[in-house]
Amino acid sequence: MVAIKDELYGMIKFDELEERIIDTPDFQRLRRITQMSVTNLVYPGANHTRFEHSLGTAHLSSVISGKLGFEDEEKRKIKLFALLHDIGHIAFSHEGEDVLREYLGDHEQLGREIILKGEIADILNENYSAKEIVDMQKNKKGMIVEADIGADRMDYLKRDALNTGVAYGVIDIDRIVHTLTVEGDELCVGEGGLEAAESLLVARFMMFSAVYLHKTVRIATAMLHRAIKESIKDGTIKPGEFINMGDEVAYWRMEQSPSAKKYAEGILKRKLYKEIMFIPEKKISRESAEKLGKELSEKFGCDIMVDYPTQFWKTVELNVKTKEGLKPLTELSVLVRSLQEAEEERRRILVLAEEEVRKSKGEEIKKAVSGFNG
Amino acid sequence: MVAIKDELYGMIKFDELEERIIDTPDFQRLRRITQMSVTNLVYPGANHTRFEHSLGTAHLSSVISGKLGFEDEEKRKIKLFALLHDIGHIAFSHEGEDVLREYLGDHEQLGREIILKGEIADILNENYSAKEIVDMQKNKKGMIVEADIGADRMDYLKRDALNTGVAYGVIDIDRIVHTLTVEGDELCVGEGGLEAAESLLVARFMMFSAVYLHKTVRIATAMLHRAIKESIKDGTIKPGEFINMGDEVAYWRMEQSPSAKKYAEGILKRKLYKEIMFIPEKKISRESAEKLGKELSEKFGCDIMVDYPTQFWKTVELNVKTKEGLKPLTELSVLVRSLQEAEEERRRILVLAEEEVRKSKGEEIKKAVSGFNG
Amino acid sequence: MVAIKDELYGMIKFDELEERIIDTPDFQRLRRITQMSVTNLVYPGANHTRFEHSLGTAHLSSVISGKLGFEDEEKRKIKLFALLHDIGHIAFSHEGEDVLREYLGDHEQLGREIILKGEIADILNENYSAKEIVDMQKNKKGMIVEADIGADRMDYLKRDALNTGVAYGVIDIDRIVHTLTVEGDELCVGEGGLEAAESLLVARFMMFSAVYLHKTVRIATAMLHRAIKESIKDGTIKPGEFINMGDEVAYWRMEQSPSAKKYAEGILKRKLYKEIMFIPEKKISRESAEKLGKELSEKFGCDIMVDYPTQFWKTVELNVKTKEGLKPLTELSVLVRSLQEAEEERRRILVLAEEEVRKSKGEEIKKAVSGFNG
Amino acid sequence: MVAIKDELYGMIKFDELEERIIDTPDFQRLRRITQMSVTNLVYPGANHTRFEHSLGTAHLSSVISGKLGFEDEEKRKIKLFALLHDIGHIAFSHEGEDVLREYLGDHEQLGREIILKGEIADILNENYSAKEIVDMQKNKKGMIVEADIGADRMDYLKRDALNTGVAYGVIDIDRIVHTLTVEGDELCVGEGGLEAAESLLVARFMMFSAVYLHKTVRIATAMLHRAIKESIKDGTIKPGEFINMGDEVAYWRMEQSPSAKKYAEGILKRKLYKEIMFIPEKKISRESAEKLGKELSEKFGCDIMVDYPTQFWKTVELNVKTKEGLKPLTELSVLVRSLQEAEEERRRILVLAEEEVRKSKGEEIKKAVSGFNG
Repeated sequence: MVAIKDELYGMIKFDELEERIIDTPDFQRLRRITQMSVTNLVYPGANHTRFEHSLGTAHLSSVISGKLGFEDEEKRKIKLFALLHDIGHIAFSHEGEDVLREYLGDHEQLGREIILKGEIADILNENYSAKEIVDMQKNKKGMIVEADIGADRMDYLKRDALNTGVAYGVIDIDRIVHTLTVEGDELCVGEGGLEAAESLLVARFMMFSAVYLHKTVRIATAMLHRAIKESIKDGTIKPGEFINMGDEVAYWRMEQSPSAKKYAEGILKRKLYKEIMFIPEKKISRESAEKLGKELSEKFGCDIMVDYPTQFWKTVELNVKTKEGLKPLTELSVLVRSLQEAEEERRRILVLAEEEVRKSKGEEIKKAVSGFNG
Repeated sequence: MVAIKDELYGMIKFDELEERIIDTPDFQRLRRITQMSVTNLVYPGANHTRFEHSLGTAHLSSVISGKLGFEDEEKRKIKLFALLHDIGHIAFSHEGEDVLREYLGDHEQLGREIILKGEIADILNENYSAKEIVDMQKNKKGMIVEADIGADRMDYLKRDALNTGVAYGVIDIDRIVHTLTVEGDELCVGEGGLEAAESLLVARFMMFSAVYLHKTVRIATAMLHRAIKESIKDGTIKPGEFINMGDEVAYWRMEQSPSAKKYAEGILKRKLYKEIMFIPEKKISRESAEKLGKELSEKFGCDIMVDYPTQFWKTVELNVKTKEGLKPLTELSVLVRSLQEAEEERRRILVLAEEEVRKSKGEEIKKAVSGFNG
Repeated sequence: MVAIKDELYGMIKFDELEERIIDTPDFQRLRRITQMSVTNLVYPGANHTRFEHSLGTAHLSSVISGKLGFEDEEKRKIKLFALLHDIGHIAFSHEGEDVLREYLGDHEQLGREIILKGEIADILNENYSAKEIVDMQKNKKGMIVEADIGADRMDYLKRDALNTGVAYGVIDIDRIVHTLTVEGDELCVGEGGLEAAESLLVARFMMFSAVYLHKTVRIATAMLHRAIKESIKDGTIKPGEFINMGDEVAYWRMEQSPSAKKYAEGILKRKLYKEIMFIPEKKISRESAEKLGKELSEKFGCDIMVDYPTQFWKTVELNVKTKEGLKPLTELSVLVRSLQEAEEERRRILVLAEEEVRKSKGEEIKKAVSGFNG
Repeated sequence: MVAIKDELYGMIKFDELEERIIDTPDFQRLRRITQMSVTNLVYPGANHTRFEHSLGTAHLSSVISGKLGFEDEEKRKIKLFALLHDIGHIAFSHEGEDVLREYLGDHEQLGREIILKGEIADILNENYSAKEIVDMQKNKKGMIVEADIGADRMDYLKRDALNTGVAYGVIDIDRIVHTLTVEGDELCVGEGGLEAAESLLVARFMMFSAVYLHKTVRIATAMLHRAIKESIKDGTIKPGEFINMGDEVAYWRMEQSPSAKKYAEGILKRKLYKEIMFIPEKKISRESAEKLGKELSEKFGCDIMVDYPTQFWKTVELNVKTKEGLKPLTELSVLVRSLQEAEEERRRILVLAEEEVRKSKGEEIKKAVSGFNG
């Protein structure tokens, strides 16, 4: 057994099997993938990695399954599933995935492949079936990890809040876990847990609003997306190579790409694009935005990006146990309902260009955008 | 100059004049008045006092006025006003005030009297005018302390969150202060401070929902109100005596009152009344609730309390600076607007009685309540 | 089962039996006894109580006994013993005990009496034997609570550090517990736990040096001792009455005593005695110090206190497991050995008097002290 | 002015000049150099960088110089010096420097070069003289940053403690700064600051003992040293190239070196050498240790490293102001004196080899070591 000091939970423990999995090169790779990608350009402390998050999620999953009274054997499997839930992440986590999905599939698919073959599979198959662990994604036990109120989300939310220093995101994991219960096949919130569940969702909203979709973070992310695309397009990097690179090495490699270099260096040396203006999201579609970017770039003879916001806020699927049976949280909480609307209000399309372009042609570009008709 | 270790801000400093005020018996008295009254029956750590809160508010006010670029002389006066803003609190803080207001006036009035005469006045008048300090309540400088986003509220919110251990209430004072600005005569939130302001109000809502109006806290408060009333009614304690008692001594004295004893002991020994049922607030008025309590007590020959909730959520008066000028936060934030509604949903009238009464007559009482017509 | 929010451990849980004990008046009484007595005159946040410490020690004891692999039944008994280990504390905790020991016995004896009769005994005897719980003090299981590295010390050290805000005392309970082991009948530190054990003892030393024996704390404590003595001597309070009073009520009562009033009020209104000079401890004995105090008071016709320091640093009794068997920590760690010497260097006898006396007669008193011959 | 969220100090601010320096590529480079090199193999949270530490040291230096009453102009220069004090660090910080010193000079020299030419020099020379800033290293103002109790040490100690999660290292910066004073040309500790200074040095000792010289950290560091050496020896990397690489890219490059690959991969994939035995440091000299390593490797036909410990504990040079004038801290504190001795007790020479070698030849190697005569 090994005990590891975690910044959220203190000493957390892993048995010998888990330790062997952690010590595989595929897992160690996660040490070099930051959890929040370019966010450390705005919040310098955000240097935590998928490695720490994976250990933390595993630990938290076993706290939750313990609270829910699962048997030891089930608890162990859930913990393994949690430990491996992000094993498929590649350089830049979600920001890399966004671009590379079309070549490599998403991180869940990549994760399946890694778990089902190679060293991790061998270790798992000694005592369990690797396939059984992978397949938990679809069943009740997997939801301990993946539900809206599951171990994954609670861990990253609190860990991101701690490392950025943003108090908004600090959730009370203890209290939330205390209210969790299983009804039928579903992880839900027990009586008296309404405030705890609300607090989780409010914290998540606040983090999106202030951190994940911070303007500078969005600009750097747009540049990163472009760098990855260009480095593939000009053949400098093959998509599959991103699997075995950490963030820093990927930057290094992209700097070798004639067409990606500009964007990669812009991020590394903090020469970021600037906002010329924004357009409320409802005005134009994602496709129109892309078209607008192309038209503007051609018209003005320089690179102008029109960045469409990610839709982060999906419908919350979480039931609360009441005296009248299970009820959706969105029905019980006007506060949670308001978050959906608040998110929409706040979604903006950004028109971006290099600083010199903004200075010399900013006003003209604004006019051109006003005249654009989808 | 003296440096005092504060649990929120680390070392905070007071000059010789401030130190002399702190060392007066009137101010030292605040050491014996807990900030949250009976709340420590639910959250055992909630033992912090008006003394700590007063020092903290003074410190925070000078951080804010410094950030806003006030002159040294103004800053000093604001700090003195902040230091003294709760000097009129008596045993049990707001919970004592609720009952004793009709005899003694509220804590602002009592505070005026204490500041304008006696030792504190003498110290102030050496360099300033005591009247000038007291009168800041009505002007712009006072709002640094008393605004919806002022030093008082930020201090108690974070201090209460820390001492109860409720993560919901943890606000990012640093970030909020960073966004504050003065427009005309008004303290408001600068551009880019929307999330910071929202976070403050959401935290406040969550604290009310989970702590200040926690059911057990409300029950103990209802018993405390009754204890104070009875001890005055039967002549055991004169209203004015509460000014010089801390919470613990007030309990001790109330235990000597034949009619208050039962309630005071109930709190001290944690034999609390229990909830028989609740009535949604909109159903009946405060007056009807009182009437209902009397009718039930007579009908069943025992003490039945009908506790009407405090309306904690007043309209938020806070403007945000935008490119189009000042705009009310409630206009800009659907999230903040939803809090008002959420609060109303959550307000309940409690029907309370001793445990034995609930057991033996609970069902009958419920029926009687259903038949009640305002 | 009840879950209580603790400031050190988050949500901590108590079963129904434990909850019933906590809800007895004898236990609720601990809410009104501060853990650190007059220390809040220097560290205003130090308002935590024996109640919180008792709950925390109970929780920590079950973490430790769980780590050591004890059986459920044993764990439960250890937790009950821990929960009740301070039940015999009276007003002002150790500072009250110091004076009242000669009348009432120490807090262990008082605790035995409370546990063996009355409501707590009745509850314990339903499932266990109250005597068996009390007697754990003498055996191996009790040491989980009472050893130099046991639950009691770790809890108060960290809790006191947190509430005073003194970083020195922050120990890493998690890591220390992780290294604990039982050898034969003895709780000791496992291999690799040397640093953890050192850190605990260094923290304890630093807390004594900076907090427990802070000069102002010592002055207020000397005045408190005097107040208690005088209030008994003039018959205002009977020794046994201190058992059922919290700190605040005891002050209130002592203010009624003609001879104690001066000291009690001095503390409450923060008009403290001042240091005229100090004498290195080695110079004179405790008896001589007392004699000196009397002589000075007579000679100068005013109250002069000569305060002898408590010997806080007892020999550390803690063994560490090494490849060569158990070895005393003091043998293995030069750092720990140095603490004993450091403590002696720092022990001083204080000569104290009211501020006016110091001003008018300070120099003469100093001379008189120099001329004193034991 | 820009405000950045720091994990130690909350919002910290930089004026426009400072911001421009921070935004140079030379400074941004620090984002890719971890503060603690391989330590995250043991403490996964230790991913903080020289970038954060440099910002933090700058902020803390201005807190200290403010406390000491320096003029604005001096404060600004000290802050710039602090901001740039680590600009000469290369990949792996001190661990890289240890090997590359013979080729590149140490980080102070490299820093001088970077500050005196290029973009940073240009920015500095607009308002100040770059040379003047660099030369502060030798004078009184520089000591605010570099003294034993200066901004640099306090910042890294607390930051390392926070990110590793080791409570031992948590120092009370607030309190220490509060006690600082300048006597003549020397930064020292004022009266009443003895405990604060002790606490800093004890924390430093504990961090060395438990973290910086943790056995696994030492093993990984020994492998890292070897990897750097080999990659230079076989011509894969030129020494100067390490200046512009972050840690991750340096690993990537070393993996291309035929002779360094084994060590670099060993770290990245966590296949670390193991301890066969240790030798007390006093037994043999650094040169003998090196010789022993070579002899063993030859004799057993495999790579055996004999790792000599870094001497971390230099004489403490810190004076404390007392009523009898300045006195060395080591004279006043037996505790601090004991640290020197404790450190020596704990210094060990490690004999290391790959896991298979330990298994197959461990016992023989131990015998060979016993027979070694310097």
